[in-house]
Amino acid sequence: MKVQPLDERVLVEPAEQEEKVGSIIIPDTAKEKPSMGKIIAVGTDEELQKLLKVGDKVIFGKFAGEEIKIEGKKHLIISRSDILAKVD
Amino acid sequence: MKVQPLDERVLVEPAEQEEKVGSIIIPDTAKEKPSMGKIIAVGTDEELQKLLKVGDKVIFGKFAGEEIKIEGKKHLIISRSDILAKVD
Amino acid sequence: MKVQPLDERVLVEPAEQEEKVGSIIIPDTAKEKPSMGKIIAVGTDEELQKLLKVGDKVIFGKFAGEEIKIEGKKHLIISRSDILAKVD
Amino acid sequence: MKVQPLDERVLVEPAEQEEKVGSIIIPDTAKEKPSMGKIIAVGTDEELQKLLKVGDKVIFGKFAGEEIKIEGKKHLIISRSDILAKVD
Amino acid sequence: MKVQPLDERVLVEPAEQEEKVGSIIIPDTAKEKPSMGKIIAVGTDEELQKLLKVGDKVIFGKFAGEEIKIEGKKHLIISRSDILAKVD
Amino acid sequence: MKVQPLDERVLVEPAEQEEKVGSIIIPDTAKEKPSMGKIIAVGTDEELQKLLKVGDKVIFGKFAGEEIKIEGKKHLIISRSDILAKVD
Amino acid sequence: MKVQPLDERVLVEPAEQEEKVGSIIIPDTAKEKPSMGKIIAVGTDEELQKLLKVGDKVIFGKFAGEEIKIEGKKHLIISRSDILAKVD
Repeated sequence: MKVQPLDERVLVEPAEQEEKVGSIIIPDTAKEKPSMGKIIAVGTDEELQKLLKVGDKVIFGKFAGEEIKIEGKKHLIISRSDILAKVD
Repeated sequence: MKVQPLDERVLVEPAEQEEKVGSIIIPDTAKEKPSMGKIIAVGTDEELQKLLKVGDKVIFGKFAGEEIKIEGKKHLIISRSDILAKVD
Repeated sequence: MKVQPLDERVLVEPAEQEEKVGSIIIPDTAKEKPSMGKIIAVGTDEELQKLLKVGDKVIFGKFAGEEIKIEGKKHLIISRSDILAKVD
Repeated sequence: MKVQPLDERVLVEPAEQEEKVGSIIIPDTAKEKPSMGKIIAVGTDEELQKLLKVGDKVIFGKFAGEEIKIEGKKHLIISRSDILAKVD
Repeated sequence: MKVQPLDERVLVEPAEQEEKVGSIIIPDTAKEKPSMGKIIAVGTDEELQKLLKVGDKVIFGKFAGEEIKIEGKKHLIISRSDILAKVD
Repeated sequence: MKVQPLDERVLVEPAEQEEKVGSIIIPDTAKEKPSMGKIIAVGTDEELQKLLKVGDKVIFGKFAGEEIKIEGKKHLIISRSDILAKVD
Repeated sequence: MKVQPLDERVLVEPAEQEEKVGSIIIPDTAKEKPSMGKIIAVGTDEELQKLLKVGDKVIFGKFAGEEIKIEGKKHLIISRSDILAKVD
């Protein structure tokens, strides 16, 4: 069973509370704090599929995305326009 | 008798209260809780018809769509832009 | 004497109070209750003329359209974007 | 002396109080009551000139248009997007 | 010294208080009273230059334009979208 | 050291308080008083570079632009859409 | 480890409190005070990559961008539309 985002959306598994990936930290003091996560599935849009791949780590706006649970774990379906950056 | 959505809309029969499809659960705690359902008819738009098929299970934003009743059952006419993902 | 809608509009004669066409019912409980009606004239837009024909039964958003009376009967001039579905 | 509307506008002489053209009546009860009138001049836009001609009777949204007086008579300069239908 | 409007704007010298050009009168009772004036300079946009010429008399929305004084006289810099009609 | 505006912006040195260039005066009574200034640098957009040159005197909307100081002098970075006219 | 902005965004390391680069000062009195910084990474958009390079100093609107920390240092992910100018 698989969630396939439509159009320019991605399915993301957000990082745990200690939002830190390597040396990158999202500070609590940021007005509209961005979050991080890992891409689980990329939308049907072809241009998006060239830009982002399953497994990519991404930074996205804090209130971005719609929450669903898959096998007990929180996931987000997020629009391309809310993905700020990839973390390589 | 058949409801044929116009342009980029789909006709969806929403899932029952226990919004759970296999291992995917829509949590009550989500701010703007998405819902699930099954596509009954796809709109007249050709691009949409390549993307979504009758019988596809989809996740859509909670306040998406306009409600109608067909043979006593609640259905929704939902715009493509409110369909977040397919569940394969 | 004939009302010819302009551009992407249709002229619709709305269904009577008991908004029921065959087995399809528009429930009163719907937040923004859609309505039904029959197309009397299709706008001048060529693409629209391929999509909708005189005599088609359509579902449209409740507050859609501008009301006029033709030979004592209520009619609505409705934009394509407010036509949700055809009922075949 | 002649008023030539610019771009996608038309110059319209609105119908008298008893807003009735043949069997078509604009009811007072309509939320945003449309009005009727006769086209006196068509804007400079070529596509519009194919769609509407001087002398056409048109229905337009109640608050549409800007009022001017020509030889003592009220006229309106109305945008194409506010012209709902022609009455043939 | 010359004011050359940019893009799709025109420089207009508005008509005097008695807003009357020949038999055309702008009534005080109009909700958003249009005004008249004479074009002094046409913007740099090529399409606009085909549509409007220096010396043309135009009708424009009452709150249209930005006011400047040239040699003691009030002038307005007005966008094409606020020019309703030419008066020939 | 040079400030190079991006895209469709220009860098402007605004005129002194007595906002008067030759015979052109910006009156205090204007609702949204435009201002004048001299272009110091033109943005990277090619079309804009054909339209406006360094040294051009321009009129712009009063609240247009973002203020910076260069060598102690107030300057503004203004979008093309806020430049109303050139003064030749 | 590298933050790669998506689409038309850049990653910027903002300048220290004394917002002064050479002779350019951002005054405190400016309504919506712009800020300065150095580009650390350019987004995936090809046109943007021709316009801005790593190491470029840029001026951007005060509330522009989303804050993240990289190796303890504040950074911003800023949209192209919020980058006002380059400082060469």
